[in-house]
Amino acid sequence: MLSEFDLIKEYFQRPHHATRAALGIGDDCALIAPTPGMQTAISSDMLVEGRHFFAGEDPLRLGHKALAVNLSDLAAMGARPVGFTLALALPEANRAWLQGFSQGLFALADAFNIELIGGDTTKGPLNICITVFGELRPGQALRRSAARAGDDIWISGTLGDARLALAGYRLELPQPLEAADQRAAAVRMHTPTPRVELGVLLAEQGLAHAAIDISDGLIGDLGHILKLSKVGATLNVDALPAGDVLATQGIGLRRAYTAAGGDDYELCFTAPIASREAILAVADSVGTQVTRVGSITAESGLRLIDANGAALDLKLSSFDHFTS
Amino acid sequence: MLSEFDLIKEYFQRPHHATRAALGIGDDCALIAPTPGMQTAISSDMLVEGRHFFAGEDPLRLGHKALAVNLSDLAAMGARPVGFTLALALPEANRAWLQGFSQGLFALADAFNIELIGGDTTKGPLNICITVFGELRPGQALRRSAARAGDDIWISGTLGDARLALAGYRLELPQPLEAADQRAAAVRMHTPTPRVELGVLLAEQGLAHAAIDISDGLIGDLGHILKLSKVGATLNVDALPAGDVLATQGIGLRRAYTAAGGDDYELCFTAPIASREAILAVADSVGTQVTRVGSITAESGLRLIDANGAALDLKLSSFDHFTS
Repeated sequence: MLSEFDLIKEYFQRPHHATRAALGIGDDCALIAPTPGMQTAISSDMLVEGRHFFAGEDPLRLGHKALAVNLSDLAAMGARPVGFTLALALPEANRAWLQGFSQGLFALADAFNIELIGGDTTKGPLNICITVFGELRPGQALRRSAARAGDDIWISGTLGDARLALAGYRLELPQPLEAADQRAAAVRMHTPTPRVELGVLLAEQGLAHAAIDISDGLIGDLGHILKLSKVGATLNVDALPAGDVLATQGIGLRRAYTAAGGDDYELCFTAPIASREAILAVADSVGTQVTRVGSITAESGLRLIDANGAALDLKLSSFDHFTS
Repeated sequence: MLSEFDLIKEYFQRPHHATRAALGIGDDCALIAPTPGMQTAISSDMLVEGRHFFAGEDPLRLGHKALAVNLSDLAAMGARPVGFTLALALPEANRAWLQGFSQGLFALADAFNIELIGGDTTKGPLNICITVFGELRPGQALRRSAARAGDDIWISGTLGDARLALAGYRLELPQPLEAADQRAAAVRMHTPTPRVELGVLLAEQGLAHAAIDISDGLIGDLGHILKLSKVGATLNVDALPAGDVLATQGIGLRRAYTAAGGDDYELCFTAPIASREAILAVADSVGTQVTRVGSITAESGLRLIDANGAALDLKLSSFDHFTS
């Protein structure tokens, strides 16, 4: 039987290549030395089996996704990732599972050059709690409360394929997807790409005002910006960039899943009109598509319009972990 | 039905009395401004129902304990607490439970003047994951690897009452405890006291070398210090300070539960002989009992002795979350 200490040593303790962490795994606390003059950004996300992922989910994809959704929060703040802790409850210490999970986790960590600096393992219903740390210069954070009337609303990447894949798995679609389409859409659901470089550059270059990552559906998440910034918005639903598979579906599904899909982990940010060219240049430099989809208004409320500028009345709602 | 946002707002979002946090709950990340020149200490602990606490546990006590075990890790490092995040999976958004839990949590947070700066809530089997942040001056951390031959071994407070209470609940005792004794011992199990002030002063005044908090039983936890410091120890088992209730029990139980009980959340630290008087003065100043219980030796291995200095061969083992 694999003990807790063997488990940590075998799967999660790696040669200490610390430039950041003064002390990593193996003591009561990890120690990090903050870069002088920088603020620390912190976010914590918990993923529960049967809620955030299917029972029996491929552990490699799960390792990626658990870290990706946390990095996405740093991206939405414009913070540069530094490290993370992992607390993990497992029904059993299964080697194949741990091998896959740690591989998926560290592949993404290495892509961003960040370290696992500490955490906890215990027996229990599968639960993954990651806390990430990032750094940014005071005053540069992309806060939800910073949108201003007249700002453009931008979306990174494309929306809705993750929701489409979920609908496919759940047999909710009017007609099932082709197997290849289901697989392609599922890649967006299982292995989201945190838009870290884009968020960091938008913050460092002072190009954007407010930002949020789209996890519960664009309309709900944009709603947080509107509420905290005390502004409204006009959103062109037909301008929302649909994922490759969703783009081949009918307009009803496209509108619903781009506007209120969920699990996208793209950035929604607002920026002054004067930033347009610089934003396109920055997005191009990091290879991320960005699309203008509406404007922030002084008048409160969210107005949805179609390609012709006519009002759209979509019956959509945001995902909530306790009411849905 | 209480939504996720209402839940956070109603039970976990408090008037922002931030001296530390530049930005608290309600954005993608929390922001903290590290004190210039200080290191950040980070620890994460996950508590699972049925594993770390009984199903149906009083939520007020649980709120206290979940934060206390994390603060205990900061104490063992000698770091001054700054704030924490809370990720919480709940089977349902039950108001009475949330009321009690948040009350227990914030009572302890207020006692240490620290803030809840962010986190996550979701539906799922009850799981509490707290990540704490503290600060300390570079070079002052009480590391597990820092024990030196000739050091005294010290214990804060008393040991074993938590384990005695658990044995009482499990009907494992040769004869049941009196109801009043069971209740008194259970206080130590349910509401441990993190030795934060003691740990911080030992570190700040440079009085101790190594430290660890005793969560899995003294022998196992001291074993981590010995292994990482590449030293051995002689431990006088009969000098171990027993909890008030355990002190009334027979010598077999006393030895077993002080030496390898678990859930004590006292500090075990090593310090040079020259520090003795200063340690007693510091402990007195914060109202915490400390007891010398042995010595660190250059020779490896842990030797248990009794009050007369004779070798003791206790068949004890440390608690492990995957093998027990």
